[in-house]
Amino acid sequence: MSDIKNTPAHEGQPPYLLTPGPITTTATVKEAMLRDWGSWDGDFRAMTKQLCDQLLIVANAVDSHVCVPVQGSGTFAVEATLASLVPKDGKVLVLMNGAYGQRLAKTLDYLGRDYVALDKGDYLPPMPEEVEELLTQDTGITHVTVIHCETSSGILNPVPEIAEVVACLGRRLIIDSMSAFGAIPVDAQTLPFDALISSANKCFEGVPGFGFSIIRRSALENCQGYAHSLSLDLYEQWLYMEKTGQWRFTPPTHIVAAFLQAMAEHEAEGGVAGRLARYQRNQQRLVAGMKELGFRTLLNEKWLSPIIVTFLSPQNPRFDFEEFYNRIKAHGFVIYPGKLTVVDSFRLGCIGQLYDEQIDQVLQAIAAVLDEMGIDSGHAELPEQNAVTA
Amino acid sequence: MSDIKNTPAHEGQPPYLLTPGPITTTATVKEAMLRDWGSWDGDFRAMTKQLCDQLLIVANAVDSHVCVPVQGSGTFAVEATLASLVPKDGKVLVLMNGAYGQRLAKTLDYLGRDYVALDKGDYLPPMPEEVEELLTQDTGITHVTVIHCETSSGILNPVPEIAEVVACLGRRLIIDSMSAFGAIPVDAQTLPFDALISSANKCFEGVPGFGFSIIRRSALENCQGYAHSLSLDLYEQWLYMEKTGQWRFTPPTHIVAAFLQAMAEHEAEGGVAGRLARYQRNQQRLVAGMKELGFRTLLNEKWLSPIIVTFLSPQNPRFDFEEFYNRIKAHGFVIYPGKLTVVDSFRLGCIGQLYDEQIDQVLQAIAAVLDEMGIDSGHAELPEQNAVTA
Ligand SMILES: Cc1ncc(COP(=O)(O)O)c(C=O)c1O
Ligand SMILES: Cc1ncc(COP(=O)(O)O)c(C=O)c1O
Repeated sequence: MSDIKNTPAHEGQPPYLLTPGPITTTATVKEAMLRDWGSWDGDFRAMTKQLCDQLLIVANAVDSHVCVPVQGSGTFAVEATLASLVPKDGKVLVLMNGAYGQRLAKTLDYLGRDYVALDKGDYLPPMPEEVEELLTQDTGITHVTVIHCETSSGILNPVPEIAEVVACLGRRLIIDSMSAFGAIPVDAQTLPFDALISSANKCFEGVPGFGFSIIRRSALENCQGYAHSLSLDLYEQWLYMEKTGQWRFTPPTHIVAAFLQAMAEHEAEGGVAGRLARYQRNQQRLVAGMKELGFRTLLNEKWLSPIIVTFLSPQNPRFDFEEFYNRIKAHGFVIYPGKLTVVDSFRLGCIGQLYDEQIDQVLQAIAAVLDEMGIDSGHAELPEQNAVTA
Repeated sequence: MSDIKNTPAHEGQPPYLLTPGPITTTATVKEAMLRDWGSWDGDFRAMTKQLCDQLLIVANAVDSHVCVPVQGSGTFAVEATLASLVPKDGKVLVLMNGAYGQRLAKTLDYLGRDYVALDKGDYLPPMPEEVEELLTQDTGITHVTVIHCETSSGILNPVPEIAEVVACLGRRLIIDSMSAFGAIPVDAQTLPFDALISSANKCFEGVPGFGFSIIRRSALENCQGYAHSLSLDLYEQWLYMEKTGQWRFTPPTHIVAAFLQAMAEHEAEGGVAGRLARYQRNQQRLVAGMKELGFRTLLNEKWLSPIIVTFLSPQNPRFDFEEFYNRIKAHGFVIYPGKLTVVDSFRLGCIGQLYDEQIDQVLQAIAAVLDEMGIDSGHAELPEQNAVTA
């Protein structure tokens, strides 16, 4: 065995991950990685086909879209989608309300694609009326991008309403649904989009190693030669897969196997509806418990996603995030730092193998840690108001 | 469990992979994937550090180079390295003698970097004298690329001799050592290179999901702003890792864990020397056995690598590769198709968890399959000469 020393976790078990992914997966998902596959072999080609077919079914996009997986992390899939779909003379309206919207704009900088941004800051949602106004004013805009769940704050953006406006005005929508797809319903027949991007290790509860893009076939067909990168060329990846059943370059075979198992378990849980129900329950239990401990959410309830929740850090001078993190980890839970530019915060994820039991345990752990740190849990001295009351 | 039906293999076991990767890994390497890690967490940051530190030690490059891993397959790492190291006004001499040299040139096409190619066709090695002449003639050439083991034919290119010429003439060398590093000795103190690229699932016998580049620190330090891609920007990846210990975007945590275990087993086998010895033994046993069955290698012995060997297909009209492949697979072995443009061939890999026992079994399987197909194994009616006799 390698000589990595893991920090001792709860009762000798690895800690539960209350993070936005990688998340805690089932033992059976991980066990699906206990064999090797030849990437050229028919067995693995069948696995790739099953992966794509099933993802299209989840999005109700079988007839209209194709699914193109790509090696790497979710960011790779976003970059690949933008590069492969937006023509060199296209112009993108980037709806931005957090780190992932900002990253998307940065990607367009690298690609040298023209864009304008609607930047709503850390926690306000882009509203369909604003999109309508911008698209009406600037007829040069060809594509709109939106983050489905902006994981940096946890806000669930009003994607269906935005999609309607974008479609009505004849523009093309690209949805970064990294942390939403699999738990937030997506129906390609009623939600018009050219591409929806996600990855293996979020709401489908697989392990990290690839992303995928569900792309309108009629759009992708016209995209030969758009991409800036051989590795990230989704047009070529799609063409090659159609022809050979293989990925163009070595696929993460074990991660794909784990994902198929994860999809089977997703289906067994009741698909998107079943998963959403569990995550919502996690979130409500978590938020209620945290409020009892004196914490407050960044966002007004209306905008809270069932994916991840941002809590404002206690104003108490004894509160130090690193100490808080390490102490909670010693109780067996890994939490997540904040990603806001303005206020101090931390995040708790609701996704992955988390159930009532784990939520209750993490709440107990947080209560104990506040005690250990000498912070009165009933009065964590928080800012008076949620940052978002809109 | 997912409902993939695997073709029944040898005694209910998954087939051995006689391929250039993904290859057959140990059970312990795969078992290292049986837990989840938070990518932000200190435990995983320590794993990333260990990964990079150990790879630098294997290349004897601790003081001169840095190791930058990147998500995706080997091709992603090659593209990332070219994009991050070759300035926009650079010019590359691409040494080409097979599919991976061609792919490298195609990558430069995407990147819009100027290059000239020395194309030696399917199986002839680029010679140091040729490189010297080209570099002397064209003083605009800034970088030279060479494929260490050109996996498409299995040829081991004369990299040390080429490196010497390149260094003498003051140019920078980039080595695609995908299928060589870990088994072919590399000593950065005597083999001058700016970058050497490899991936997790070749001679270190990990599972696929990331690549890495060992880059001269003094070269990388000057490369801010070169890369065409956010995801593939190795300068930024390096900077961020130095600062935070984290990958910029979600790393394939399980694949990294498997790789650390694989590196521990690599070391236990005697490091590069030990692994080379086993692969050489595999290759010699395989080639001797195949010759007995009437097969001939594409390459003259001098150029055979211990990584993978190309055999010429029997000229017998009863020989059909797909049938041959499927029948050998039914015996429990996955072989690899040829990747030559001119002659019919197939390949047998020597890397991965293969020992005398498996080599003997695959030879028995091939003999049996020739029998089943009605091809006289003593006289497989092969072309008279090796393609390469140089
Ligand atoms: C909305 C969103 N977009 C993009 C990403 C980037 O994905 P990755 O970290 O896999 O590159 C994330 C990751 O959490 C995300 O939540
Ligand atoms: C020499 C060489 N370069 C590049 C690659 C590409 O690596 P990947 O298939 O992981 O993208 C390979 C794969 O076998 C290779 O052998």
